[in-house]
Amino acid sequence: MSKDRPGEFELIRKFFAPLASDPGSLGLTDDAAVFVPEDGCDLVLTKDVLASDVHFFRDDAPETIAAKALRVNLSDLAAKGARPRGYLLGLALPSDWTEGWLERFCAGLKADQSAFDIHLLGGDTIRSGNGLQVSITAIGQVPAGRTVRRSGANPDDVLFVTGTVGDAAAGLKIRLDGGFSAQNGLTASDERHLLDRYLLPRPRLALARLLTEYASASMDVSDGLFADSAHMAMASGVDIEIDLARVPVSNGLKRLRSNARSTYVACLNGGDDYEILAAVPSSRATAFTKGAASAGCPVTAIGTVLEGGGHVTCLEDGVRVDWQSAGGFTHF
Amino acid sequence: MSKDRPGEFELIRKFFAPLASDPGSLGLTDDAAVFVPEDGCDLVLTKDVLASDVHFFRDDAPETIAAKALRVNLSDLAAKGARPRGYLLGLALPSDWTEGWLERFCAGLKADQSAFDIHLLGGDTIRSGNGLQVSITAIGQVPAGRTVRRSGANPDDVLFVTGTVGDAAAGLKIRLDGGFSAQNGLTASDERHLLDRYLLPRPRLALARLLTEYASASMDVSDGLFADSAHMAMASGVDIEIDLARVPVSNGLKRLRSNARSTYVACLNGGDDYEILAAVPSSRATAFTKGAASAGCPVTAIGTVLEGGGHVTCLEDGVRVDWQSAGGFTHF
Repeated sequence: MSKDRPGEFELIRKFFAPLASDPGSLGLTDDAAVFVPEDGCDLVLTKDVLASDVHFFRDDAPETIAAKALRVNLSDLAAKGARPRGYLLGLALPSDWTEGWLERFCAGLKADQSAFDIHLLGGDTIRSGNGLQVSITAIGQVPAGRTVRRSGANPDDVLFVTGTVGDAAAGLKIRLDGGFSAQNGLTASDERHLLDRYLLPRPRLALARLLTEYASASMDVSDGLFADSAHMAMASGVDIEIDLARVPVSNGLKRLRSNARSTYVACLNGGDDYEILAAVPSSRATAFTKGAASAGCPVTAIGTVLEGGGHVTCLEDGVRVDWQSAGGFTHF
Repeated sequence: MSKDRPGEFELIRKFFAPLASDPGSLGLTDDAAVFVPEDGCDLVLTKDVLASDVHFFRDDAPETIAAKALRVNLSDLAAKGARPRGYLLGLALPSDWTEGWLERFCAGLKADQSAFDIHLLGGDTIRSGNGLQVSITAIGQVPAGRTVRRSGANPDDVLFVTGTVGDAAAGLKIRLDGGFSAQNGLTASDERHLLDRYLLPRPRLALARLLTEYASASMDVSDGLFADSAHMAMASGVDIEIDLARVPVSNGLKRLRSNARSTYVACLNGGDDYEILAAVPSSRATAFTKGAASAGCPVTAIGTVLEGGGHVTCLEDGVRVDWQSAGGFTHF
């Protein structure tokens, strides 16, 4: 039960203090950080815990483990329309951690801090002896009262999604099964793209401001396109209809669609996409699409919000399927 | 690598949503929480990670594990002069978790939420398969610019400590060694008190407002009285002299002082006290003492801040010992 305190202080000084460039972090030399909220802003708070063998592989590059842990939180901020301000890092190091590993982990954080304009405010490091766990609390800000919730979707809204869907789930399948790409006719370039999408989410922060201006509801897609659409439909008390033909997918997923239809649909709902699902009033859909393109964050209209009670239906070749009653597409 | 999502949603609904009484938590139904800062306030942010077999015993009562995880964070808020506003909970459950265990864990949180006027804002639950880990991020508020740092101590300040020191360390020794109490002449009542002090910190939130009004520096004692005094001295660029005879101790520690002097001194610097160490200008020391008594949080003047460069000296029977050069009292 001993605490190797000199070790902890040395860790902070050597590895974490250089990441704590915000004055409120007090150089990580105090019990806590001081955060000065900007006038007229609300804060958005999110916390995700990632563990080895659950959310990433033990032998993933330390830089990508760090980036993934930070980015899944940044994705939540983006979905709520928030600009990142800072984060706190809780790190439980396994008994066999090395300084070299931690150096690379912190390099991953540092690169993402620059990329996404966010700073380490504080945290805690322990040695758990039980695998690696990374717990990040991220803080973002939105103009007061403008946080975009998942519960605000209205009938006649258009449902948009950013980027492409299903890549990360396919990447995980490739990671778990060395024969997956060959069996399903994926090229080496498909494989690289899909593996990368599983390893490294791309938080859609470029869209955050537009969401506060245009979206009636928004959330990130972490559990899968249909499951998360159902979450939005239930929270908003509406139905959502998705036109499967319009769901944007990468070249690899297109090949999967041709070669292994049921695997393709499973990937669409496989999760870990960290794209944004947003409901936008139809009268503003064109302006939103243009704004998103200018912000460098392509969006695709994939469906419509309807009156209803929390159901997602999918249109495929003119046929409507109720996703929930069909047991989440297990019939595909 | 599967995520048992329905399990997670059910957990949230059944166990955590009832703790999320703050409207900003959005009933834990969204990606993130919304936090509305009060005008004219800064926020204080702190994060501690606790793991079984490191910070608590696996077979400790779930209620006390929950309370300890929350309270070590509340102690940091108190030391900075902050009033608690909310917290985020990251919970990694071991593979053998049960609903009964989680129910008691949440009951512990609920009782402390009432006791300390704080609410669950959000969080994340995972199953790690690797022991229990609890990661809490707590948020408090202080009047703008009034956060009390550990770096503000000035020569001629009086050094105060709340409550009694050394109890938790003695409690841990009792916990680890069944013969400890008998060997050192501790009574059954001493033993109960000391064990309880190890299990359950008492965050000194009643003192928070007074600290913002009176203290030039403050921190909580988590690493031990002398070690943390040295942290304050180094951060403030001063020396601190502690009069050992004035350090407030419980009856059990008094008996330890008589019967096992070196163990007694080790306990004074054993950590986990979660009392507050505060430097107060001498001209205001009497008013601070009175205010603290009125707030129900007894304080004792145990030393003086002197010009210097980060050293702690202890006065014992008229003899001055430099704590750092004496290797942290290993000579006792």
